[in-house]
Amino acid sequence: MAAKRIGILTSGGDCAGLNAALRAVVHRAIRNYGWQVFGIRDGSLGLMDRPLNYVEFDLKSVGDEMLRLGGTILGTINKGDPFAYPMPDGSKKDRSQDFVDGYKELGIEALVVIGGDGSMRILNQLCRQGGIPMVGIPKTIDNDVAHTDYAIGFATALNVAGEAMDRLAPTAASHHRVMILEVMGRDVGHIAINAGIAGGADVVLIPEIPYTLDGIARKIAEVKAEGRNHALMVVAEGCKTETGLSVTQVQSGGQARYGGIGQYLAARLAETVEAETRVTVLGHVQRGGMPAMRDRIIASAFGVHAVDLIAQGKLGRMVAWQHGQVVDVPISDVAGITRPIDPYGTLAQTARGLGIYIGEM
Amino acid sequence: MAAKRIGILTSGGDCAGLNAALRAVVHRAIRNYGWQVFGIRDGSLGLMDRPLNYVEFDLKSVGDEMLRLGGTILGTINKGDPFAYPMPDGSKKDRSQDFVDGYKELGIEALVVIGGDGSMRILNQLCRQGGIPMVGIPKTIDNDVAHTDYAIGFATALNVAGEAMDRLAPTAASHHRVMILEVMGRDVGHIAINAGIAGGADVVLIPEIPYTLDGIARKIAEVKAEGRNHALMVVAEGCKTETGLSVTQVQSGGQARYGGIGQYLAARLAETVEAETRVTVLGHVQRGGMPAMRDRIIASAFGVHAVDLIAQGKLGRMVAWQHGQVVDVPISDVAGITRPIDPYGTLAQTARGLGIYIGEM
Amino acid sequence: MAAKRIGILTSGGDCAGLNAALRAVVHRAIRNYGWQVFGIRDGSLGLMDRPLNYVEFDLKSVGDEMLRLGGTILGTINKGDPFAYPMPDGSKKDRSQDFVDGYKELGIEALVVIGGDGSMRILNQLCRQGGIPMVGIPKTIDNDVAHTDYAIGFATALNVAGEAMDRLAPTAASHHRVMILEVMGRDVGHIAINAGIAGGADVVLIPEIPYTLDGIARKIAEVKAEGRNHALMVVAEGCKTETGLSVTQVQSGGQARYGGIGQYLAARLAETVEAETRVTVLGHVQRGGMPAMRDRIIASAFGVHAVDLIAQGKLGRMVAWQHGQVVDVPISDVAGITRPIDPYGTLAQTARGLGIYIGEM
Amino acid sequence: MAAKRIGILTSGGDCAGLNAALRAVVHRAIRNYGWQVFGIRDGSLGLMDRPLNYVEFDLKSVGDEMLRLGGTILGTINKGDPFAYPMPDGSKKDRSQDFVDGYKELGIEALVVIGGDGSMRILNQLCRQGGIPMVGIPKTIDNDVAHTDYAIGFATALNVAGEAMDRLAPTAASHHRVMILEVMGRDVGHIAINAGIAGGADVVLIPEIPYTLDGIARKIAEVKAEGRNHALMVVAEGCKTETGLSVTQVQSGGQARYGGIGQYLAARLAETVEAETRVTVLGHVQRGGMPAMRDRIIASAFGVHAVDLIAQGKLGRMVAWQHGQVVDVPISDVAGITRPIDPYGTLAQTARGLGIYIGEM
Repeated sequence: MAAKRIGILTSGGDCAGLNAALRAVVHRAIRNYGWQVFGIRDGSLGLMDRPLNYVEFDLKSVGDEMLRLGGTILGTINKGDPFAYPMPDGSKKDRSQDFVDGYKELGIEALVVIGGDGSMRILNQLCRQGGIPMVGIPKTIDNDVAHTDYAIGFATALNVAGEAMDRLAPTAASHHRVMILEVMGRDVGHIAINAGIAGGADVVLIPEIPYTLDGIARKIAEVKAEGRNHALMVVAEGCKTETGLSVTQVQSGGQARYGGIGQYLAARLAETVEAETRVTVLGHVQRGGMPAMRDRIIASAFGVHAVDLIAQGKLGRMVAWQHGQVVDVPISDVAGITRPIDPYGTLAQTARGLGIYIGEM
Repeated sequence: MAAKRIGILTSGGDCAGLNAALRAVVHRAIRNYGWQVFGIRDGSLGLMDRPLNYVEFDLKSVGDEMLRLGGTILGTINKGDPFAYPMPDGSKKDRSQDFVDGYKELGIEALVVIGGDGSMRILNQLCRQGGIPMVGIPKTIDNDVAHTDYAIGFATALNVAGEAMDRLAPTAASHHRVMILEVMGRDVGHIAINAGIAGGADVVLIPEIPYTLDGIARKIAEVKAEGRNHALMVVAEGCKTETGLSVTQVQSGGQARYGGIGQYLAARLAETVEAETRVTVLGHVQRGGMPAMRDRIIASAFGVHAVDLIAQGKLGRMVAWQHGQVVDVPISDVAGITRPIDPYGTLAQTARGLGIYIGEM
Repeated sequence: MAAKRIGILTSGGDCAGLNAALRAVVHRAIRNYGWQVFGIRDGSLGLMDRPLNYVEFDLKSVGDEMLRLGGTILGTINKGDPFAYPMPDGSKKDRSQDFVDGYKELGIEALVVIGGDGSMRILNQLCRQGGIPMVGIPKTIDNDVAHTDYAIGFATALNVAGEAMDRLAPTAASHHRVMILEVMGRDVGHIAINAGIAGGADVVLIPEIPYTLDGIARKIAEVKAEGRNHALMVVAEGCKTETGLSVTQVQSGGQARYGGIGQYLAARLAETVEAETRVTVLGHVQRGGMPAMRDRIIASAFGVHAVDLIAQGKLGRMVAWQHGQVVDVPISDVAGITRPIDPYGTLAQTARGLGIYIGEM
Repeated sequence: MAAKRIGILTSGGDCAGLNAALRAVVHRAIRNYGWQVFGIRDGSLGLMDRPLNYVEFDLKSVGDEMLRLGGTILGTINKGDPFAYPMPDGSKKDRSQDFVDGYKELGIEALVVIGGDGSMRILNQLCRQGGIPMVGIPKTIDNDVAHTDYAIGFATALNVAGEAMDRLAPTAASHHRVMILEVMGRDVGHIAINAGIAGGADVVLIPEIPYTLDGIARKIAEVKAEGRNHALMVVAEGCKTETGLSVTQVQSGGQARYGGIGQYLAARLAETVEAETRVTVLGHVQRGGMPAMRDRIIASAFGVHAVDLIAQGKLGRMVAWQHGQVVDVPISDVAGITRPIDPYGTLAQTARGLGIYIGEM
C-alpha cells in the first residue's frame, strides 16, 4: 500500500500554539504511521491557488523551536469565504470547487484543519461537499469553541492581558487613576473575566452580562470608600453600551463617536466619576508571540490525537479538551455555536466573591 | 449574634498563589458575610506559640498586589509534626494540645488550611482531635493532591521549568550537547512531563514509569540519526536509578556518590553516549515568585468557595478543581493519597506521540 | 546636633524603578548617616496640603520587595504648576509659598526630587525661591534628560515595547500584514529606535528625523521584493505628519481626524501600499510594572549617590549616569533641555546599517 | 572587481545575542557593500574540517526571528586550542595550518570573530600567523572583556540571575531561610554584584574582593536584628573559600568535598548561623535563551560597525561599547586581559550604600 498522505492547514486569526499543533501532527504521522504530511499555505487559499501552495514537512522541519514560535508558519490569509469569494471586480464567486480540486491534485487522503468556530463551519462544509475526510483542532484566543474546555491560544492571550493588568496597576495607584483595559472577546468574555480576576480588577464587563453605568460608578465609589485610591477595569471589546447599542451605533454627525467600548466608557464615566480615567486598547499583541506552556502542551495533545483519529478512520470529528483529557466530538456539533461565560459558573461567582462588579443579571 | 471569626494558615512548602487564596478568603468573608479573618503565622506554629502569633486582616491589607506576590505573607515554617514535635533536647513531644488550646484562645470558629497532601492529613487529624471545624485548600507545585485536577502553585512551577527548557535548548544546540534538567517531583512527574512536552524534550523520566539506560541511549542515538545535533532530557528528582535503587543508595566509601538523579544519569550516560552532557538542577526557583495567571485565578476561586463552605456549614471538606469548576470533596478522601501521572493517559500518550522516550511499562 | 532630616518626593509621570531609588535613599541615609527620611506624598502636593501629607520611612518599610514594585509608593498626582495652580473656580493661583512653608513645617534640611526634565525645572525654581537645598534624580521613560546617559524607567519601557514587537512579528508574518506600533516619546525617539532595532523593524519614525510617506512605501516595497511577506513599523507618538503638521491639526469638520500618528500613518499607507495594515497603540503599559534589572541597579546607584551629595553639602545638583558611572551635574544645566537621538550617532547608524528606514535628513 | 567575501564565526561558550550580531553583519555586508557572507560552523573547527563546514547567508536567512533566538545558529564546539589540538590517541597536535588553509580554500578576504577574551587571543594568533585580516566582536556573559563597557550576552545572563533572585526572595521570606544563589563568573563578579543589587541581596561575594565567614555571619545577624526574617546571598562561582583556597582544594579522602562555592558556604554557615540555608546553582540557564533587548541592540551595533571596519581596511581591531557609543580598539590591547569589578567603583559603592556585605578590602 502506498504511504498515506495527509494535509494540514491553519485558518482564521492566528494565535500562539498553532506551530506546536502542527509539529505534533508531523511527529505523530511520520514517527508512528510513516505518512507524508503536507502543509497547505495561507488557510484554504493554498488549495485554491494554482499552482498549489504547500510544503512537505519532515521531522527536521519541525524541531523544538516550533514550540516557542508564535503565529503559524503556514500563514493564514483569509480573504473571504470560498463559497462567496471576493473577486477583483467586486463580485463574489463560489470557488469551493477550486478547493476540492486542489485537494485532489495534491493527492492527500485526509485534512487536518486548525481553526476556530467560523473556520470549522466553512471548512466542514467545503470538506463535506468534496467528500474530503477532515479532522478539526480548535484554536481561538477567545476560548469560545463549543464542546471543548480549551482552544489553542487562550492561555497566551490571557498571559498578555494579565501582564498588561500587572503593568497598569502600579501606574493607576501612583496617579490615583481609573484604568480601563479593553481586551479581545467579540462575543464572549473569557479573556476579560480571567484577566480581571488574575489582575485584581474592580470592574469586569463581558458581553454575557449586562451592566449599568450607575453600577460601575457605585463600585468605584465603594473602592474609594474602602481607602483604595485607584480602580482597575477590564472590558471585552464586544461589550455593548449600557443601553444595548453597539459602540459604533453611538454616532455624532453620521460618524461613530468612539473608537471602542473602552473609550466610550471612559467618556461616560468622566461625567459621573471624579477620578482621572485612562484607556488602554490591548489589540494585536494578544495574538501572542511565544506560546504559554499550556498552549504548547494542549496543542501537542491535540495534534497527536488528530492523527490518531485519522488512523482509526474516525473522521468528521474535532479533538477537544474535556476534564483534563483529550477527547473528540463531531464537528457538526461544534459549528456555529459559541461557548459563553456562565453567569452563575465558577468564574462569575469568584469575581463576585472578590467584590468585582460584573454587571447585573 | 457575634461576628463570626475564622482563621487561616498556610502549611508545608511555599508556592506561588498562596497569597491570592488568602486574599480571596479575606474578601469573601468580609464583603459577603461580615466576618473577621485572622491569619495564623508560620503554619501550625502560630497557634502553638505563646503568645499566639497571628494578624487580623482587613480589605486594605489584601490589595491587588497580593495577586502578584509569591510565597506566603503568613510564613510557613514547619519544624515538625505537632504530634511528635522536635524539642531542643532532641526528644519528641506531642504538642497537639497546644494547637487546640491556641485555637480556642484565639476564639475562632473555623479554620481554613492551605496545604498539600501531608499538611492536609496532619491538620485534619489535629482539627478532629480538637473538634475544630476545618476546610482545606490544596496547594503543591507537584500537583499531586488527590481528587483535584489542580493544586495551587503548579502552573507557576511549570512556567519556571518550561522557561529553563527554553533557555537550555539554544545552548544545547550551539554546543551539540545533551542537557539534563532535574525538576521537582518527589513521587510524581507532573512538572517533568509537562515541561518536557512544552520544552521539546527527547527524554522525560518520571517516578511513575521505569526506564532503562539503554532506552535512553537508544533514543539519543535516534535523535542524532534524525539529524538533530543535541538532546534535551527532563528528569523528576524522585526518579530512582534504572535498577530501582534510590540515588542516595548508590554509594562509594559509605557516602552517596551522586548529588541527585540528574548527576547520576549524566555520569552513567557519559559511559555509553558520545555527546557532552550537562546537568541543571532547578531547585528552589520552582517555588516561583510572581504567580502565573492560572494560579491566581484558581486560588481565588478556591478561597471564595472555602468561605462559602464554612458559611454553609459544610466542614471537613477540601475545595477542588474538577472539569474547570470549583467543587469540594471530603478531606478524609484526600489525606495520604497522591495523584500520579497515568502511564496511559493523555500526557503520557502525547509524549509518546511526539517521540519522547518516557520509559517502558 | 540633632539627627539630620531629609525629604524625598517623586514628581511627574510614574515609571518603573522609582521605588528602588527611594529604597536606596532610605538605606543610605539611615545606615550610613543615621538620618531620618520623610517621604512626601503625591509630588509637590504633599508639602502644599495641610495637614502635610507624608510618611517617615524606616529600613523595614523599604524591603527587597520595593525593587520589584512598579510605580511609586509615594504617589505622584500632578494637578498643576505650584506657581500657577488651578483652583476650583477655574482661576490660577501662585501656591509656591505653601510648598516652602510646608517644607519648613516638616523641618527637613534637604529635599531629594525624583523627576524628569519638567519636574526638575519647576522643583528647582521652588527650591531656589525657598532657599531649599535640593538634589535631583532623573527619571523618565523617554530617557531624554540632558547630561545623563540614563534616566530611571527607560529600560523597563523599552522591554515593554520590545516585547510588543516580539508579539506582533509572528502575527504580522502569519497574516502578511504591515504592523505599526506606536510607542511613547513626545519629543524624542529613544524608545522607538531602540525597540525598532531590538524588534526587527523595517521602518522606525522618530521626532528627530523627518520622513516621507513615499520613503516608507518604498521600503515596504523593498521588503516585499526581498521575499519577506510582512513589515514592522515603530513610530514615536510625538512624530509629526510628513508635512510637519501635528496629527491633531489634520482635521475634518473641526475635529481631529486621527487618534494618533499610528492611525494616521495606517490610513495614509492604505492609499499606496497593498498590504493590510494594523495599528497598536501601546500606551500606559510602558510605564512598566515590575522594573527591569537595569532600572533597579541604576536607581539604586542614584539613590545612594544623592544622599552622599547631601552629606557632602553638594546641593543644587542632579545625579547622572555617564560612561557606566554615577556622577553629578548642576541641576541648572539640565532644566529645560532635552536629549534627542543623534541622527548620526550609533543608534541611527545601526538602524540604517540594518536597512531600517528611519527617514531622510 | 570580484565581490568581496567575508567569513564569520562564533567561538567559545554560547550566549544570547550572537545571532543578532551575525544578522547585523549579514545585513550590513549585503545591503551596503554587496559582499558575500559565509558563516563558519562550530567555531574554528569549520575551517579546520575537510570538507569545510560553512553556510552562505542571504538576507532571508537572517530575518527578524534571529533577534529572538538564543545561542548561535553557527554552533560553537570547542574541542581545544588549534595550536595544541587534542587527537583521538590522546596526543596534542598543532592544527593551526589547517585553519589557515581552510580560510584560503574558502576564499574569504576577512574574518569576523565573535568571541570572549580567550577566543579573541587564540583567533588573533591564528589570524596573524596566516596573515588573515580579522575583526573581533566581544561576547561573554561574564562581561569581562577589556576596553569595552559591554560584551554581548551579559544583559540576558543578568536577567536570568535577577529573575532567580525574584523567585528566591518570596520562598526565603516564607520559610525564614538564608538563600544562596551561585551564579557564573569564574574570575569576575559582574553578574553577581548586579544581580545582588537588583535582587535585594544582603551578601554578595565576588572574586575581586576577599570576605570572611565571620563578616557574612555578622551581616546575617544584623539583618535579623533589623526585623527581616530571611537573607539573600549571591556568590560568583569563581569565589575562593575565605582562606584563599579554591573549593576543589577543600578535600576529604582525596576527593573534593563540596560541589561548588555555594555548597561550601552553606555548609560553613550552618556551623555558625541558626537559620536554615538553601543553595541554588543557576548553571547553564544563564547562557540565556531569548536575548534581552540590550543584547540585541548592542549586538546589532557591533555587527554593523565590524563590517564598516573591514570596508575601511581597519583590521586587527575589536569593536567595543564605550560611553553608549560603538567604537573600536586594537585586538592586541584586549587579548589576555580581564575587566574586573572596581572595588571602589559605582557598583561596589552602591552595594555598600545599600548595606550589602561585599567583603572587606
